Amino acid sequence: MSTGNGDYKYPATGVECAHHVAVPPPQPFTKSLKTSLKETFFPDDPLRQFRNQPASRKFILGLQYLFPILEWGPRYSFQFLKADLISGITIASLAIPQGISYAKLANLPPILGLYSSFVPPLVYAMMGSSRDLAVGTVAVGSLLIASMLGSEVKANEHPQTYLHLAFLATFFAGVFQVSLGLLRLGFVVDFLSHATIVGFMGGAATVVCLQQLKGILGLDHFTHGTDIVSVMRSVFTQTHQWRWESGVLGCCFLFFLMLTKYFSKRRPKLFWVSAMAPLTSVILGSLLVYLTHAERHGVQVIGNLKKGLNPPSLSELPFGSPYLSTAIKIGIVTGIIALAEGIAVGRSFAMFKNYHIDGNKEMIAFGMMNIAGSCTSCYLTTGPFSRSAVNFNAGCKTAVSNIVMAMAVMITLLFLTPLFHYTPLVVLSSIIIAAMLGLIDYDAAIHLWKVDKFDFIVCMAAYIGVVFGSVEIGLVLAVAISLLRMVLFVARPRTMVLGNIPNSKIYRSVDQYPAASTVPGVLILEIDAPIYFANAGYLRERISRWIDEEEDKLKAAGESSLQYVILDMGAVGNIDTSGISMLEEVKKSMERSGLKLVLANPGGEVMKKMNKSKFIELLGQEWIYLTVGEAVGACNFMLHTCKPKAVTDDSTMV
Amino acid sequence: MSTGNGDYKYPATGVECAHHVAVPPPQPFTKSLKTSLKETFFPDDPLRQFRNQPASRKFILGLQYLFPILEWGPRYSFQFLKADLISGITIASLAIPQGISYAKLANLPPILGLYSSFVPPLVYAMMGSSRDLAVGTVAVGSLLIASMLGSEVKANEHPQTYLHLAFLATFFAGVFQVSLGLLRLGFVVDFLSHATIVGFMGGAATVVCLQQLKGILGLDHFTHGTDIVSVMRSVFTQTHQWRWESGVLGCCFLFFLMLTKYFSKRRPKLFWVSAMAPLTSVILGSLLVYLTHAERHGVQVIGNLKKGLNPPSLSELPFGSPYLSTAIKIGIVTGIIALAEGIAVGRSFAMFKNYHIDGNKEMIAFGMMNIAGSCTSCYLTTGPFSRSAVNFNAGCKTAVSNIVMAMAVMITLLFLTPLFHYTPLVVLSSIIIAAMLGLIDYDAAIHLWKVDKFDFIVCMAAYIGVVFGSVEIGLVLAVAISLLRMVLFVARPRTMVLGNIPNSKIYRSVDQYPAASTVPGVLILEIDAPIYFANAGYLRERISRWIDEEEDKLKAAGESSLQYVILDMGAVGNIDTSGISMLEEVKKSMERSGLKLVLANPGGEVMKKMNKSKFIELLGQEWIYLTVGEAVGACNFMLHTCKPKAVTDDSTMV
Repeated sequence: MSTGNGDYKYPATGVECAHHVAVPPPQPFTKSLKTSLKETFFPDDPLRQFRNQPASRKFILGLQYLFPILEWGPRYSFQFLKADLISGITIASLAIPQGISYAKLANLPPILGLYSSFVPPLVYAMMGSSRDLAVGTVAVGSLLIASMLGSEVKANEHPQTYLHLAFLATFFAGVFQVSLGLLRLGFVVDFLSHATIVGFMGGAATVVCLQQLKGILGLDHFTHGTDIVSVMRSVFTQTHQWRWESGVLGCCFLFFLMLTKYFSKRRPKLFWVSAMAPLTSVILGSLLVYLTHAERHGVQVIGNLKKGLNPPSLSELPFGSPYLSTAIKIGIVTGIIALAEGIAVGRSFAMFKNYHIDGNKEMIAFGMMNIAGSCTSCYLTTGPFSRSAVNFNAGCKTAVSNIVMAMAVMITLLFLTPLFHYTPLVVLSSIIIAAMLGLIDYDAAIHLWKVDKFDFIVCMAAYIGVVFGSVEIGLVLAVAISLLRMVLFVARPRTMVLGNIPNSKIYRSVDQYPAASTVPGVLILEIDAPIYFANAGYLRERISRWIDEEEDKLKAAGESSLQYVILDMGAVGNIDTSGISMLEEVKKSMERSGLKLVLANPGGEVMKKMNKSKFIELLGQEWIYLTVGEAVGACNFMLHTCKPKAVTDDSTMV
Repeated sequence: MSTGNGDYKYPATGVECAHHVAVPPPQPFTKSLKTSLKETFFPDDPLRQFRNQPASRKFILGLQYLFPILEWGPRYSFQFLKADLISGITIASLAIPQGISYAKLANLPPILGLYSSFVPPLVYAMMGSSRDLAVGTVAVGSLLIASMLGSEVKANEHPQTYLHLAFLATFFAGVFQVSLGLLRLGFVVDFLSHATIVGFMGGAATVVCLQQLKGILGLDHFTHGTDIVSVMRSVFTQTHQWRWESGVLGCCFLFFLMLTKYFSKRRPKLFWVSAMAPLTSVILGSLLVYLTHAERHGVQVIGNLKKGLNPPSLSELPFGSPYLSTAIKIGIVTGIIALAEGIAVGRSFAMFKNYHIDGNKEMIAFGMMNIAGSCTSCYLTTGPFSRSAVNFNAGCKTAVSNIVMAMAVMITLLFLTPLFHYTPLVVLSSIIIAAMLGLIDYDAAIHLWKVDKFDFIVCMAAYIGVVFGSVEIGLVLAVAISLLRMVLFVARPRTMVLGNIPNSKIYRSVDQYPAASTVPGVLILEIDAPIYFANAGYLRERISRWIDEEEDKLKAAGESSLQYVILDMGAVGNIDTSGISMLEEVKKSMERSGLKLVLANPGGEVMKKMNKSKFIELLGQEWIYLTVGEAVGACNFMLHTCKPKAVTDDSTMV
């Protein structure tokens, strides 16, 4: 066997072959392990900036890494402050009514929505690296708490237990988020694909809107289920309880809110119209109730809100509760959903403004914000899309806009809570519905259908699962189908017949390039995935079927039979021991039918494994070529100079 | 944008470009769905032979498909019969003592081992497609039944319930196997990789050997656990109970059996020496006990075996039992393990003799054999490796050897069972240990370590899980790690910098080919896996890091800065909508830093998706090349004829 460096010859003929397929230089095991661990957990190489720095500088860089405010704070200017002030006040006017609405959605006291817009934004402003994210509670998180916690503890029967468990779940969500960040497991979020999120968000928005029927219709009793069947049953079994006053009011405000949205969409400069609309609705609604005393005619109002800042709640975290495991489960599910939304939103705006967001660092910031929140009477917060978009449109420059919002909320908490006494619940329902309708993204679903049917299936599974089952069912379904696709990609790799592109030495799939012509006597196959245990059996069957079909075709056409099978390994990223056994079996069974196996363009990993398992010796280094073109050249040479018999003889050479 | 067929020009320059990257011709959705379903479930195209045949012929082919005996039966010759007679009697002499031993291992009445070597082989002979497989009970399956069933029902306390549940589990194993075959889910077995099976079998063999310490040491009480810790504790807490007579006898027979194995291994022609050794041991041991009355001195014997053929047990299947779910679980686990062993064994021998085995058809045969078995007092059977190897070495020609074995067992059942009365249990233990030691495959484990460290980890996880935990733990651990590897392959694809192989237009990884030289001003990256949601985020980060690193390097060397980034998409088998968004983001952020994205060699699926999502329009068809060489040519041309500025201007052209 020749072992030269690029100047060895065609077997048994002596013609020189152009290129030699190299086995990559051997690496010690520890080094390759280190490299692959680094790529898995530190793909962004976060310690890059610390390299070659003195210790004091490293300390400052470390502090700045944990608290980005230390980095941009000193450079903060009056220009920035002006912009942040405007955007901060704008988002505060959105945050107050939304906070109250979402707290109601989570079956928590409305005041918690205000508390949650005070502490967490301050924490995020110090630790977060996004300049555009506006922190607050989200509808999906609130809904999840209501449905998951509500199935264990009824909020109206044991309000205190329910409240404390909500704090505990928030605490665990924070701990989970921080751990993900510290363990560099940020990529877990990547497993929620775009399609999953579109379907999931749409489903959650639908469910949230359905829940609002309670408020709009002024119903007293309502189902605890979130699925469409229970809700519809609940609504239509008590038609006699519907309150027309409430319904009319709700529809009017919904129309007003949608109108302002429409205007803001048509003229982006009027973003503040839709941003201010919720607060306007609340003020108008409260005034209306106050003046007409509609609360005595079936229009439910918020009632008393306690004055004062967040009371501490650390001592109220019930770690000894029998529902501890439920709280942990809710914490993990809501934590990951909150992360997915927050990080996706942060990344989108960072891309617009061309700066960089470190996913793992963001997770730590989100987690710290929720841990701090759970100790100060807040529940789950993240970076909601709607509020962040308003923040961005209002021209925020840094996270100071979050601080401004927190201050505005603080003033509200200290002095203005009595003003919300007469706010009708139906206005809050309208605000939620108006926000949710924007989350149902038909266009995205249609786009998915057009581009990738499988992604569309994933999206619909998530949607249907959430709407007809529950939020968790939808999520698990979508993630399972997405993973199944990845496993199927490996388990059923595509194999393609290659042909020669006219006037070139290039070989490509004949399906993609109908003009490509096959080479007589030679079958060229490309394998499109790593060869692993999961597909080794399939590939063996499939290759033998390709050969059978090709021979049948040749026989039918009366042409000379097949002599060589070239496997293009260019797209085979890796191979395991099952894969190598498969290649050995394929080679053996081919030899038995007088065929010769030729490999083209195996990559570094594959060459390494084939070398270590002695498959290269078994096959013969002279049957491995750098390109399909060279392999075909060698085969053609053999076909035309040697008798077919020579091929079988040749195999004894190895 | 040019849309020609291979004769369009370099952008803004007018130089002709050689090849055009084609979007594959569109296919209707139903057709592509049909193709992909067919590839997933019918990769072997089982209906090929039915095509273009008259109805009567189709019926005969269908019968032959279900009962392969109808196909080879008519061609059966006297020559075959002679060979099958010899091999059938040989395996019967092995089957009888092994059957009794394994039934003891499963804590079932010993006679069941003989029953299970009578009916199932007859069923398999009619329905199976392997010519070399010898049907019988297996150690691992027996152990699984003992440990899984034993943890629910104690065999010595409720022997009747235990027995009936074993039948029920066998029934469900059969139903599960048939369903897998009918649903074309044969590929489930592929998920047990070679590495998993090596580790699992080794672990199971170790556990089985440890269990035999009971028989060898003549202990009356023994742990119900299978893990090494419980067994060792059980053995060493009752050292005063050890029986030296039993121990000496056991060691002698073990030595004898190992010696015959050694001889047979050195001289394959003497295969019958080791094949006959178990029966010889049984006869010798029985004679010894009969003559010395050792059963009165602490040597336990089998005792009475009922004469007569298998009693029917259909009416004894306890479908109403409270342990129904346990039986179903045991059925599924043992069913899949039995399939994995049986199909792997069948395939190996089929490969030797160059015939074909249909996995899905085999599953149906195995399943029918177990369903029939569960109705005739048999427990789980499959094609054990040891017995099939003896069958193969004895020169069997067809499944008739199984019929001969069944006849021999039938004669034993009818007339010879009293002869086993004095057979000492310790001989059975020696037989099991001798068989098991062959299953611990050190060489394979060392081979795994050398070739693929990850496979070695999987193998060791299975081994340690089985030995220190339980059979199920080992199995789940190994399968989970194997799947994790596949997911990691997709989640963390390798990206490689390509360089030009000297004196060619070929571009390959500079890691694999250290001689390859990079092109000034151009960074060429190859992505090694499909671009899916799970890796889109990672790839975005990694590509931007490659660019940063390259620019740092160029700056340090004082060279001109980067102008083009070429992505070689040759190994990207597929892309989803998240992947396309990623490409869009990468393009945008590159443009912001004055870089131009160029794609080389995208495959059919990728072109289709990029076309549907309008990414091709966004990028410009003129920035997609058929090979990296052509892309570099175009970039070089632009670099040397146009000013760098022209590149950024160009992007407005689209």
